[in-house]
Amino acid sequence: MKKSLLALALLGAFAGVAQAQSAVVIYGNVDAGMIKRTDQSLAIGKRANNTLGFKGTEDLGNGLSAIFQLEIRYEPDTGTTESAVRPLFQGQSRVGLSGGFGTLRIGRGLTAFQESAVAFEPFHGIPSPAGFATDLAVGGYTSEPLAPAGNSINRFSNALWYNSPEFLGIQINTTIASKEALGNTVAIPGRGINGGPQYLINAPASANPYSISATWKNGPGALMLAAERNAIESQVKSVAGYVMVNPDTKLMFSITRQDQSHTKVTDQDTKSWLVGANYTMGAGKFLAGYGQKDADGAAKVKQASVGYEYSLSKRTYVYTDFSNKKGAPAIAPSTKTSINHLDLGINHSF
Amino acid sequence: MKKSLLALALLGAFAGVAQAQSAVVIYGNVDAGMIKRTDQSLAIGKRANNTLGFKGTEDLGNGLSAIFQLEIRYEPDTGTTESAVRPLFQGQSRVGLSGGFGTLRIGRGLTAFQESAVAFEPFHGIPSPAGFATDLAVGGYTSEPLAPAGNSINRFSNALWYNSPEFLGIQINTTIASKEALGNTVAIPGRGINGGPQYLINAPASANPYSISATWKNGPGALMLAAERNAIESQVKSVAGYVMVNPDTKLMFSITRQDQSHTKVTDQDTKSWLVGANYTMGAGKFLAGYGQKDADGAAKVKQASVGYEYSLSKRTYVYTDFSNKKGAPAIAPSTKTSINHLDLGINHSF
Amino acid sequence: MKKSLLALALLGAFAGVAQAQSAVVIYGNVDAGMIKRTDQSLAIGKRANNTLGFKGTEDLGNGLSAIFQLEIRYEPDTGTTESAVRPLFQGQSRVGLSGGFGTLRIGRGLTAFQESAVAFEPFHGIPSPAGFATDLAVGGYTSEPLAPAGNSINRFSNALWYNSPEFLGIQINTTIASKEALGNTVAIPGRGINGGPQYLINAPASANPYSISATWKNGPGALMLAAERNAIESQVKSVAGYVMVNPDTKLMFSITRQDQSHTKVTDQDTKSWLVGANYTMGAGKFLAGYGQKDADGAAKVKQASVGYEYSLSKRTYVYTDFSNKKGAPAIAPSTKTSINHLDLGINHSF
Repeated sequence: MKKSLLALALLGAFAGVAQAQSAVVIYGNVDAGMIKRTDQSLAIGKRANNTLGFKGTEDLGNGLSAIFQLEIRYEPDTGTTESAVRPLFQGQSRVGLSGGFGTLRIGRGLTAFQESAVAFEPFHGIPSPAGFATDLAVGGYTSEPLAPAGNSINRFSNALWYNSPEFLGIQINTTIASKEALGNTVAIPGRGINGGPQYLINAPASANPYSISATWKNGPGALMLAAERNAIESQVKSVAGYVMVNPDTKLMFSITRQDQSHTKVTDQDTKSWLVGANYTMGAGKFLAGYGQKDADGAAKVKQASVGYEYSLSKRTYVYTDFSNKKGAPAIAPSTKTSINHLDLGINHSF
Repeated sequence: MKKSLLALALLGAFAGVAQAQSAVVIYGNVDAGMIKRTDQSLAIGKRANNTLGFKGTEDLGNGLSAIFQLEIRYEPDTGTTESAVRPLFQGQSRVGLSGGFGTLRIGRGLTAFQESAVAFEPFHGIPSPAGFATDLAVGGYTSEPLAPAGNSINRFSNALWYNSPEFLGIQINTTIASKEALGNTVAIPGRGINGGPQYLINAPASANPYSISATWKNGPGALMLAAERNAIESQVKSVAGYVMVNPDTKLMFSITRQDQSHTKVTDQDTKSWLVGANYTMGAGKFLAGYGQKDADGAAKVKQASVGYEYSLSKRTYVYTDFSNKKGAPAIAPSTKTSINHLDLGINHSF
Repeated sequence: MKKSLLALALLGAFAGVAQAQSAVVIYGNVDAGMIKRTDQSLAIGKRANNTLGFKGTEDLGNGLSAIFQLEIRYEPDTGTTESAVRPLFQGQSRVGLSGGFGTLRIGRGLTAFQESAVAFEPFHGIPSPAGFATDLAVGGYTSEPLAPAGNSINRFSNALWYNSPEFLGIQINTTIASKEALGNTVAIPGRGINGGPQYLINAPASANPYSISATWKNGPGALMLAAERNAIESQVKSVAGYVMVNPDTKLMFSITRQDQSHTKVTDQDTKSWLVGANYTMGAGKFLAGYGQKDADGAAKVKQASVGYEYSLSKRTYVYTDFSNKKGAPAIAPSTKTSINHLDLGINHSF
């Protein structure tokens, strides 16, 4: 059937060109362990994000490359994608060009700020309550508040990314999103009233969301300055840094402030800070962090976490963490607001 | 654990045979760009279908092969599958045998008519409003009307495909589906009444849906004759042709008529036609088309589209299109029925 | 961008180690055919489970390996995942370590009992009504009753697996699950009342579910003893065996008893048994089985099935089955409780 018309219709349906040999890299990781939290029964769950991804690079000549990346997120304890409202390719879905000018991508993924902040968080961005990535490292900020509840809080959909090349150790990263509605299912009164809310159901953004980060690497140290505005015009600013005091020891900090004055009349500001350390000893790596989040009108949140990762190979490690968080919302039916978290598990990359 | 009973149970669970080495080809494409439509804000979206597929061929000897293909469809701007009601393998999910007798497949995919029509549409079947594939090229016809709203309109589920070998340039393609219900969630009154609709919720087909196309290739030209009947017995007939007037220039046309007399008392017929051209100049390719659709009792639809694709490599191209469609349903809150469409994006195959 | 801070953040987000070359095996199978059942129209459907999986093994040295397996389940006739309430990786999602001590895994998959029972069922565990796997081979037992209706009935979520090495032909397999709730959407009165049901909506397990099987291989024969308790404390016990009377002929039996006394006041017991045979002749394989299920207070179920698989290669076979089941619940609108099942299809592994 190779030369038939239908075969042409089927196989040549992209600009009339023959399909070159496939160049897809499949990658991912599986992370699962046992978790015990205050007033909860022993659970099986994850510590890091679980990914199954497909990516590729095509050399276009003249230093230019086409790149793409599609990343499934899932939960190994139940076999599901991350949640019913999260997309199949929750990790990212982007395509673009990379070259001397930098990298330009289009699609959906972590914002420039959220991507850059990972390097300054002592638990390398894991979503576990033992880490700081989704709360204290970003001042409690949400990048996509007009998506349905439970969707991603650190990504932009419908967006363009530009990452500059590194020049004198400096790199500029920007993300800008369209105003397209993302299906929020409850109205947000904000500065409006319940009968005339500030953001209706399935509201579009009131301004184009953007995110920008600048990072500066200098010898053993690095600094980040970042700012972001989301679809409801909450703003976040962050400064962070790290220093490798020796090849085995990394110290880091971040300071973040969120401004919700566009949707709040009172209690507009949230401030957070954290300090952290990583210490590598043979196949083991110690992680430690402490931070606070102070939201106007709410109890101060204090989190202290320690972790240990032991590498069985370059692709597999076992881990354990202990963390305490005070001032966080209680998890019903418990009324405790000081929550201990203990975990023990395995992480395998492929 | 290789020789244990459980390992046998786990690994040998298909006809007791050892699993030969995997022979899966991963393929797909990512297409994303910026889109501006009349009275809509600038959006990020797709022009072509986005695919991530798995396929393979096994040589069975004597010229016979086993073939399979599973194709995920997704939206890179949001990371989701095509829509909540579309299946994971929206592209296709088929398995079968191929040999001197032709190709026989079972599963779900484009119907014989819809598959064949792609070669006679100037925008090679893209679902973008800049193309003609899902409307004027098929007379506004829907292949699967008893699936939930938003599902595929050009596929059969639960079907058998037979594609003949090419003989004297002629190929016959047929698809026939079972009558199984597909979960339509609203009743279709049709020639019935609201209290006694012609098709109930989750109705089975009233006759086996079928589709047939015959294509004839002769030197630089090709012709197609096609007919299809769907689950509610709407019928469509189409004749189409193209000629390569020189190696760089393809001219094409199609004429299609839909007959909905099985479910409509009046306004039963829809007629459409289109003419198109492709012109390749170096790495660039110009696409152009014009067509009309005249449905009884509705305003005449007129669409004119031009496009340009510039190949950066055999697998990557950038594109831009401009299209105007008159007489189409207005997209609320706009009331305009003359809609301009402008896009600019990138398509990368892997 | 290789050396930039962001690239580090993106690519090194797992314990700071470089990603080794990918070592993923993609595997799966596609099974589709035509099915005719009593009082139902001819349908397209499956006989065996349809899978698309990703798995890998990493040698950690000293005889230790890291292993993972992620397995999508889908329906080729409609392109969907198995059902709306089943997870993407319905087949399994597990990660663990394998070595001289045995195999230890964490995640979701078939229970030890359900995995082991496949070797003693004459239709090698297919979910088709022609087989016995999900009903008579397990005494009508359900491993996960607190998941939403339609979800898996032979798996544990949130569980740990341990498979011992084989010693003197004996292997011990165990699974133990956490008590985590799995989202049952209707309350189960059980020994409670409707106003105070025994298991509420989204109830956690009342005891840790566990499953254990012991298998003994000795020359041409094998025996299995198994016991399991699910989240609502229904218990199942099973004994099964097979013998290869010659290299082409396998005879097998199983006897199973389910005890639902934890949730039922009367009609607590279900007993089932089956006998089966497989006979290989050249490229063909005959399958046959007969069994009965006797649940207290319900009509006795009797099932007789014959099947034939003809291998076109090591990876592809065609099949046909005929089965009759008496005493099963009628499938509306039919009121018949003696249901014939006839199928004809193809199975291709990759």
